[in-house]
Amino acid sequence: MSDKRFDYDLFVIGGGSGGVRAARRAAALGKRVAIAEEFRYGGTCVIRGCVPKKLLVYASQFSESFEDAAGYGWSVGPRSFDWATLIANKDNEIDRLERIYRSNLEKAGAELLMSRAVMEGPHHIRLLSTDAVVTAERILIAVGGRPNPFPGLPGAEHCITSNEAFHLKRLPKSIVILGGGYIAVEFANIFLGLGSEVTLVYRGKEILQGFDDDLRHELHQAMVKKGARILCEDTLTEVVQKPDGRFEAHLKSGDRLDADEVMLAVGRMPNTEDLGCEKAGVELGPKGEIVVDDYSQTSVAHIHAIGDVTNRVQLTPVAIHEAMCFVETVYHGRPTKPDFETVATAVFSQPEIGTVGLTESAAARSHGDLDIYRARFKPMRHTLSGRDEAMLMKLVVDATSRKVLGAHVLGPDAGELAQVLGICVKAGLTKEDFDRTMAVHPTAAEELVTLYDPSYRVRDGQRVET
Amino acid sequence: MSDKRFDYDLFVIGGGSGGVRAARRAAALGKRVAIAEEFRYGGTCVIRGCVPKKLLVYASQFSESFEDAAGYGWSVGPRSFDWATLIANKDNEIDRLERIYRSNLEKAGAELLMSRAVMEGPHHIRLLSTDAVVTAERILIAVGGRPNPFPGLPGAEHCITSNEAFHLKRLPKSIVILGGGYIAVEFANIFLGLGSEVTLVYRGKEILQGFDDDLRHELHQAMVKKGARILCEDTLTEVVQKPDGRFEAHLKSGDRLDADEVMLAVGRMPNTEDLGCEKAGVELGPKGEIVVDDYSQTSVAHIHAIGDVTNRVQLTPVAIHEAMCFVETVYHGRPTKPDFETVATAVFSQPEIGTVGLTESAAARSHGDLDIYRARFKPMRHTLSGRDEAMLMKLVVDATSRKVLGAHVLGPDAGELAQVLGICVKAGLTKEDFDRTMAVHPTAAEELVTLYDPSYRVRDGQRVET
Repeated sequence: MSDKRFDYDLFVIGGGSGGVRAARRAAALGKRVAIAEEFRYGGTCVIRGCVPKKLLVYASQFSESFEDAAGYGWSVGPRSFDWATLIANKDNEIDRLERIYRSNLEKAGAELLMSRAVMEGPHHIRLLSTDAVVTAERILIAVGGRPNPFPGLPGAEHCITSNEAFHLKRLPKSIVILGGGYIAVEFANIFLGLGSEVTLVYRGKEILQGFDDDLRHELHQAMVKKGARILCEDTLTEVVQKPDGRFEAHLKSGDRLDADEVMLAVGRMPNTEDLGCEKAGVELGPKGEIVVDDYSQTSVAHIHAIGDVTNRVQLTPVAIHEAMCFVETVYHGRPTKPDFETVATAVFSQPEIGTVGLTESAAARSHGDLDIYRARFKPMRHTLSGRDEAMLMKLVVDATSRKVLGAHVLGPDAGELAQVLGICVKAGLTKEDFDRTMAVHPTAAEELVTLYDPSYRVRDGQRVET
Repeated sequence: MSDKRFDYDLFVIGGGSGGVRAARRAAALGKRVAIAEEFRYGGTCVIRGCVPKKLLVYASQFSESFEDAAGYGWSVGPRSFDWATLIANKDNEIDRLERIYRSNLEKAGAELLMSRAVMEGPHHIRLLSTDAVVTAERILIAVGGRPNPFPGLPGAEHCITSNEAFHLKRLPKSIVILGGGYIAVEFANIFLGLGSEVTLVYRGKEILQGFDDDLRHELHQAMVKKGARILCEDTLTEVVQKPDGRFEAHLKSGDRLDADEVMLAVGRMPNTEDLGCEKAGVELGPKGEIVVDDYSQTSVAHIHAIGDVTNRVQLTPVAIHEAMCFVETVYHGRPTKPDFETVATAVFSQPEIGTVGLTESAAARSHGDLDIYRARFKPMRHTLSGRDEAMLMKLVVDATSRKVLGAHVLGPDAGELAQVLGICVKAGLTKEDFDRTMAVHPTAAEELVTLYDPSYRVRDGQRVET
C-alpha cells in the first residue's frame, strides 16, 4: 500500500553498503524507492575502504613471497613495482563493482539519483543537483562517515587520509602515519610491503587498542622486524611543508621526521554536517552521530538511520545487517533488532589478525575465572622460507561454563579463520567441542583443536601459572 | 605396577605418529616403554607423507604467485626453479623434525630402538638389528602402511610411488601418474606447479571418489585449465623402459604416453608382512590389516594396534587420537573408543579442498530431504591477478533438523577453513547458527554465513529447483 501523498515510499540517503541493501530489498518488495548518492555507489567499503584496501594488501604481500621462494628452490630475477599500474587496475575493479551495485539497484526497481540529498523537513528532501524537492513517507539515512581531518593539528592541510592514500600519484618513499587503530596499522603494512619507509606514531601505549594484548604485542614486534618504526606514547604537534615539497612532522617528544607523505588515521566521524537533521527533527549525539533506538529508528518515527552514521559498530557487514533488520521491521512487520553480540573482525595487517569474542582482559573483568589456551609457533611455510615470524592462537575459555569466550589469531589467513571461529563462538561452543574435533593435518588451524592443557589460568583477575 | 616378568610394560612397534604418541604418553606415566623403528622416527607423516608433501605444495604454488603479481603492478624478472635445492632444504627440515620426535621420546623416558622388530610370540619381540629377543607385558602395533607397488602391472618395477617422489634426482619434465585419490591429485598439482607436463590416468569416472561431486568436477576443470591432462575411465596396462632410459606407459584405451617418470598412486597397504602376527596370534583381515575392536584391541587381549596398519581412517590425527584413546583405555582404566564421526580433511590440491561431514549424495541417501546452499565465485585476489579460477563453497543441510551435515570448500585456504568448519559440523550446528554469525569482510569465508536462500533442494533423492 503506497501512500500517494508522497513521491516515494522510501527515500534512502547514501549509496553505501547499508543504503544500497535497504533500497534493493524495499524496492524488491514493490515499494517506490529512491536512493541518492553524491559521490559513487558502493560507499566507503567499495570505493575507499575494505575492497581497495584489501587489493593493496594483496599487492604488498608479493615482496615477501618473492623472498620466501628462495628457500623453496626458486631464483627470482630483479623485480620492480609500479604504483600507477596497481592504482589503475584497482580503479578498474572498483568501477566494475560500482556498476554491479548500480545495476543491482536498477534491477530491483529503485530509482538512482546522482545527487547530494539534504532533508528540508520530516518528509521533504532537496536534491542539490537539480534543487528539486521530493517527498517520501519514510527516510533512511545511510550517509556513512569519513576520516577525521584533525583540524586541531597545525599543518593538517598538508596531510592525507585513507581517502587520498588510494589515489596518490606516486608511492611515497617515506611516510609518517598518525594513529594506532586498524586503518593506521593496515596502511603501515601496505606501504612497508611496497617498499616505503614507514613510521607509525600513536599516542597510546600499544597499537590496536581493544584487541587482545598478546596479538597487539606480537604484531608490533613483527612489524618492527619488517622494518617499521613504531613510536607509541607520542603524537604529532605540527606538520610543515618544506621548500622541496616534502614534509616535516614535529613530534611531541621533540623528534622531527622527514617524509614524502604524512597520513592521518585518527578515527572517523559521521557525515551529518549540512544534512538537514535539525529541519527534519532528527536528533544528533555528542559526536555528530544520529541517535537511534534498538531498531535503528531516529527521534522521528518514520526516519531511520543505519551504518557508520549511527556510530554503532562501524563495519560493512553490520551496516548490511542493520539494513536487513530495517526492512524486516518496517516492511515485513517483524520488529527485528540488529544483533551486535560477538562480531568477528579482521585486521589485514601482515601478519593478519582475526578475532572474535572477548579479549583476555575483558573476559577477566566480565567472567572472572578463565582458562587460557595459547599456541605460538612458526607456520610451516616459514620453515623453508626461513622467515622469522610467529603465528599466535589463543582461546579465552570460561573456567566454569567452559564456553569459548574469545578466539584470537595472528598469522596467515587469520581473517578467514575468524569468520568460521565466529560461528563457533557465536553459537556458544565449549572448549570440549573444540577438543572433540579431529585435527586436519598439516594446517595451522589444527592448533585450535589440539590445545590440550591450559597455558595458564586467570583466577580473581590474577594470572596463575598451571 | 610393573610386572617384572617382562622386560617392558609396553613395546611399541613403529615410530610413526601413532606409535610415538602412545610411547610418549605411556612413558610419561612411568611405564617401562620401548619403541622400535626400522627406518626413521616420524613415520609416513613426517618422513614421506603429509609434511614433505605440504612443503612441495608450497614450492609449487610460487609459479602462479609470480604470474599473479603482474596485475598488482609487479614486474618479475626471469625465474628458475632448482629441484635439488628444494629437496635438500626439505630433507633438512625433515631431519630437524625427526630429531624432535626422538628427543620428545627420550625426554618422556621411552627407550628408542633402531631396529626392525617382529613378534615371536604373544609377549616376545625379536630385534633384527641385534637378534635379541625381549619381552613385554603389552605390545602396540603401529607399523603403518606403504604405497601399493601394484605388482600386477607389467613394468611396475620401473615406476615410482610417493616414497620415491620425495627423493627424485631431478624434476621430471613429464610424468604419468596412475590413480585418482588424494595422493595422485596432490602430486599431479605439485609437478604441474613446478613445470612438469602431467598426465593423470584414473580408472574411475571422476577423480577423488568419495568427495562431493561439485568439488570433484570443479577441481578437475581447474587442473585442466592449468595444463594437466586427466584421463578418466582408463588405466595402465604396461610400463616399458625405452632405450634412452625414459618410459612409455601403455594405456588400456590404446594410447601410449612417453614420460620421464611413471608414478603409481593406487592405494596403500598395511605393513603386516613378516611382522610375526601368526606367531603372536594376531588376526589379520582380508587386506592384510590388523583386525581390532572398538578399543583398538587385536584378537590378543594384551596386543593393540593403531594407525594405518588397522586400515580404519588413514590420517595422522586419527592415529594420534587412537594412541590417546589406547593410553586412556589401558593405562588410565577409562575405556575410550576412538571417535571416527565427522572427520574433516583436506586435499592439498591447487585449488585446495577442505571438507567435513556428508557429501550431498551421501546425505541424500542417509537423510532424505536436504537444502543445498552453494556459492561459486572468483576469490578477490584473482580480480586483479586475472586468474580464471573459481572458489566453491557448499553447505549440505538437513531440511528437517536444519543441521549442517556437510561443508565443502574448494579454493585458497580450504584446508584451514575445513578445520574450523569441522568444529561447527561436529558440534551439530544448524544453518541458523551460521546465519546468525556476522560476516567478516572482505574474506572468502564470509560466503559461508551469507548464503541466505537454498541454491536448490533435494526431495526424495531428487534435485528440486527453488
